[in-house]
Amino acid sequence: MAEYKVWFGRVRDCEVVERSDNLFESFSNCKNPKIPFSVKDAGLKVFKSEKEYYNTLRKVSIAVAEKKVDEELRSDEKYLIALLKTLDELDLTINLLSEKLRDLEDVRDTIICDELKELIKSTKQLRKKVEDEINSNSRKLIPNMSEILGGVIAVRLIERGGGLKRIAELPASTIQILGAEKSLFKALSRIKKGRKAKTPKHGIIFQHPYIRTLPKSMRGKMARFMAGKLAIASRIDFFRGELNEDLVETVRLKYEELKKLKKG
Amino acid sequence: MAEYKVWFGRVRDCEVVERSDNLFESFSNCKNPKIPFSVKDAGLKVFKSEKEYYNTLRKVSIAVAEKKVDEELRSDEKYLIALLKTLDELDLTINLLSEKLRDLEDVRDTIICDELKELIKSTKQLRKKVEDEINSNSRKLIPNMSEILGGVIAVRLIERGGGLKRIAELPASTIQILGAEKSLFKALSRIKKGRKAKTPKHGIIFQHPYIRTLPKSMRGKMARFMAGKLAIASRIDFFRGELNEDLVETVRLKYEELKKLKKG
Repeated sequence: MAEYKVWFGRVRDCEVVERSDNLFESFSNCKNPKIPFSVKDAGLKVFKSEKEYYNTLRKVSIAVAEKKVDEELRSDEKYLIALLKTLDELDLTINLLSEKLRDLEDVRDTIICDELKELIKSTKQLRKKVEDEINSNSRKLIPNMSEILGGVIAVRLIERGGGLKRIAELPASTIQILGAEKSLFKALSRIKKGRKAKTPKHGIIFQHPYIRTLPKSMRGKMARFMAGKLAIASRIDFFRGELNEDLVETVRLKYEELKKLKKG
Repeated sequence: MAEYKVWFGRVRDCEVVERSDNLFESFSNCKNPKIPFSVKDAGLKVFKSEKEYYNTLRKVSIAVAEKKVDEELRSDEKYLIALLKTLDELDLTINLLSEKLRDLEDVRDTIICDELKELIKSTKQLRKKVEDEINSNSRKLIPNMSEILGGVIAVRLIERGGGLKRIAELPASTIQILGAEKSLFKALSRIKKGRKAKTPKHGIIFQHPYIRTLPKSMRGKMARFMAGKLAIASRIDFFRGELNEDLVETVRLKYEELKKLKKG
């Protein structure tokens, strides 16, 4: 007489032999292909009513689905972050090997210099491919954030912020200074001692041309605006995952406005 | 009427028009291909006798030759040191990129992983070539030191010691702890404060298998012996530049002797 695992426990011949303590776990592990009796009929011996049976089943399935989506997201995020770290490493490699190449060329013109040049060239080619991979993957996973910031800076923000989920919960003011924690705490400690200090106006997002190309006096304004829109963008990316072109356009318009002010 | 530059000044029509203040510089810059009169005849109007003329010429030529040899040596040394730094950089690159590759493979199996693998492979190939280039060049420039230590460690010693010339002037005790300055000064500062401390027994040369493979109690003895022979080796390398096989053999025999003691 066969025993079957169902989502609420173990069943033999339509009789419940063991109720599960942890419905979530039991549901996730329940993979029998064909059960020769009605699971619901067995379930009715466990739950008080058909309503309770279906309500519980619904709750548990949603919880399991949420967990799977979360895992999937985290794997996508992990991939993007691993790519970002590879990109940073390749950049460092290109810089340091180019330095060594110059040192070698200063002393002697050898075959080693040519081979080193070739290696640097291959490293640059791979760097480009990694960047493209970051951009194409971030367009899918975080369309709004990457449309505003560009793939690389958007992923850097997620890495520093501890994941998309956490970013989506952060206030704009925190997003604005992510990556500038060091100078923030330095400023706070000065202020605590009664001294004057400026808190940082921008962290990672400062790397974006929209901020970097503005005159100093406007960068704080632009960073604040951008961080506000990024707080919204990260929430759309996390909960819906679709591109909102209006949102992105607002940021661009603000930049154009500030740029004109600069010239006027 | 043409004017000619000779090693002791300027001459026009066999008449000295200007005596040089700095014979060394004048000699180095004297590159007229054909002079239509006897330089010695002109020189005799400057120097008191033929003997003085030839004595001065000899002294100046030796000084110029020494300088050229020195420059050549320094250029060879610089090349070896630039190669060593390239080797270290390539090692670092291989390690860090392999780490990134593992991180990427943990998350996803993509084309990027394959391309990164290829890049690491090319880096390893170049690393091998750089090592071979170090070995073949150091065999020429510092035959005795590299026969005792192997090319890479020998060049590292020269880099740390500030050049072959300086190494050739160092006492064995300093050669023994080159590269362990940090722990030496730490120990000295502890001793100064009246506390107990052990001074380091070996620096860069510790990387050599002859020391590393011996039991701890014998490593100090081997390092001291090796440093003594290296002091001699560096002097032969600097002043003569020929391999002394007996010297190298002594070090090998000492190692065999200590190794047997270990087993006995």
